Amino acid sequence: MVNKSLALLGATGSIGTSTFAVAAEQNIPIVLASADKNHLLLLKYAKQHNIPSLFFTGIEDPTLQTKLKAENPEHKIYFGETELIKALANENYDIALNAIAGSAGLRYSFAILKHNKYLALANKESLVMGGHLLTKMLSDKPIIPVDSELSALFQAIGKHPANEIQHLHLTASGGIFRDLSLEEFDKITPQQALKNPNWTMGAKVTLDSATMFNKALEVMETHWLFNQPYSKIKAVIHPQSLIHSLVEFIDGSFLAQISNPDMKLPILYALSWPQRVHSQLVQTDLTSLAPLTFREIDPKRYPMFYLGLEVANAGGIYPTVINSAVEAASFLFLQNKIPYLKMFDIVKRALDDQEPISEPDLETIMEINYQTYKKVLQQIK
Amino acid sequence: MVNKSLALLGATGSIGTSTFAVAAEQNIPIVLASADKNHLLLLKYAKQHNIPSLFFTGIEDPTLQTKLKAENPEHKIYFGETELIKALANENYDIALNAIAGSAGLRYSFAILKHNKYLALANKESLVMGGHLLTKMLSDKPIIPVDSELSALFQAIGKHPANEIQHLHLTASGGIFRDLSLEEFDKITPQQALKNPNWTMGAKVTLDSATMFNKALEVMETHWLFNQPYSKIKAVIHPQSLIHSLVEFIDGSFLAQISNPDMKLPILYALSWPQRVHSQLVQTDLTSLAPLTFREIDPKRYPMFYLGLEVANAGGIYPTVINSAVEAASFLFLQNKIPYLKMFDIVKRALDDQEPISEPDLETIMEINYQTYKKVLQQIK
Repeated sequence: MVNKSLALLGATGSIGTSTFAVAAEQNIPIVLASADKNHLLLLKYAKQHNIPSLFFTGIEDPTLQTKLKAENPEHKIYFGETELIKALANENYDIALNAIAGSAGLRYSFAILKHNKYLALANKESLVMGGHLLTKMLSDKPIIPVDSELSALFQAIGKHPANEIQHLHLTASGGIFRDLSLEEFDKITPQQALKNPNWTMGAKVTLDSATMFNKALEVMETHWLFNQPYSKIKAVIHPQSLIHSLVEFIDGSFLAQISNPDMKLPILYALSWPQRVHSQLVQTDLTSLAPLTFREIDPKRYPMFYLGLEVANAGGIYPTVINSAVEAASFLFLQNKIPYLKMFDIVKRALDDQEPISEPDLETIMEINYQTYKKVLQQIK
Repeated sequence: MVNKSLALLGATGSIGTSTFAVAAEQNIPIVLASADKNHLLLLKYAKQHNIPSLFFTGIEDPTLQTKLKAENPEHKIYFGETELIKALANENYDIALNAIAGSAGLRYSFAILKHNKYLALANKESLVMGGHLLTKMLSDKPIIPVDSELSALFQAIGKHPANEIQHLHLTASGGIFRDLSLEEFDKITPQQALKNPNWTMGAKVTLDSATMFNKALEVMETHWLFNQPYSKIKAVIHPQSLIHSLVEFIDGSFLAQISNPDMKLPILYALSWPQRVHSQLVQTDLTSLAPLTFREIDPKRYPMFYLGLEVANAGGIYPTVINSAVEAASFLFLQNKIPYLKMFDIVKRALDDQEPISEPDLETIMEINYQTYKKVLQQIK
């Protein structure tokens, strides 16, 4: 049993669903939960888990707002980002799991750390865009990763000091196009791109897995989470998604975290850390696993990954720009407005157009994020 | 660099050779070293590593003794087990690596622990025969395993408390006969049995790997080293010998230790623990590894493993009996006196003939060990 009260942000996404399964098994009290607009689903969860306070950041219709409040008097219901930030900065909870999708998650991470609460982080953008700011806010409580790869590193590093780490090896499924002939890449459709071989995830994340841009984001997260230089952070394709990442120590020994691919396990560990607790949610039988293999990441197949690495090294505002540009380019591709290969060109151009800004503050980050997104969309219209 | 002085027992075997390579890279001072009879090799090492005191436990010829002393005045040279035990109980060293082959190693482990020195253990028999005695002698210093599988568990468990462990999974190569048709087993020759697919080891160890009796011994060692009940200790065939063992925690997460199969790595870790140190001795490139697979251990192919598990659970004097009987039966097989499959019958009979003795003391263990060995050999003559 996990004896912590939870604030759950992004409760109606796939991480949210897994988190509710973990909360049910472990009897974790959820004191508040947020969703964008999906009130049917959040209210269903809220009743199952007796969640007192609910936040909808994306419902702006006053009629619907009034109706939801009137029909659910057993829950306190709030609307808009500001209310959620206020709650995160003032409410009583032990740990907040930030599973908000996209750049909107950064402001919430700020609020949680400002309140000196534990932050279990599934929102990649928080560290990608604001790692230099968030890591300065940490006192006694580390940011606890929820991503399966980052959780694997967090588990495998354990209590080893940072100076015993030679390399951190992030594993990657290689996405849906890892075996597609390169000649076929100009004909890739959104429908094709949304099938991940091993994980069931949201559309943007699945597409980022296909281009392996998500792995570049994780390289950046790894840099900030574990305070390691980029020269020590590697990525490798592991098509089976069973070894979730590996630590290589200075003596040449590797520790790897292994389990069937199921987000309930890293979520559970993020909530139970520094302890482990009994759970039946994710079981793994070694003798029924597929053969475990590794491959290098082909630059021709995954140019977005290597572009992401360049951006990581450049730092400053550029991680914000690439993330926003990829978000916009992905939207255009998923709307059938541009072909798959065009995403890279658009993103590259957005980076070329950006003047460097080192150590950008939160407002600058959010502004450049918004401007980049808008510019990419306008470029196509 | 490892800042510890070393006493190295069994210096001319394969573990000894690897230990010298580690000592050379890490500048580890070796204060004493022992061999059975191989004075040419030990003297060669002694000169390379400036080892002041040398012990030959198996050289009984007084002429040779005198000659060795006279020709090597720069080393203090001693003969016989008693001198070595005396040195281990009195000399100044930080850690002793016990890589003696066979049951003779038990007395040395006793002497090292009595002197309250760190024991790096490569001698399986110490814990198999005397685990109940040795573990009672421990104060602040744990026994540090050198076996690759046990080192892997030691590394993967790290600072996790014992109550977070669900299972310990020992991996096994499956030995040279893992793919041989069962119909061919009655024709197995000693020459065939001495080829291990992944490791270069001594004859007895290679044969124990073929029958998987070595894995039953490691199950017993795991029980004593990590204070875990037999119900939590599993073994699995992993033909590539790259994952050296795995810890399964109570939440379903596995941590595995991975590296190219080379004893220098677990030896280094045993000597550097609780730290890790920079080393170039064993490097592993993930993308050049063979696919990693697991299989169950077939009782028909490996009856000696399952017999060993029964004996582990029975405890008392039986682990001593099976170990001694296997040693004798292996000798008979390697001498072409009995066929491969007959080893199992001989060992089974030795166990059936033994009355139970619970909590045997050191002298009883050594006596039964000797008697069992003698009885098995006589049975065939």
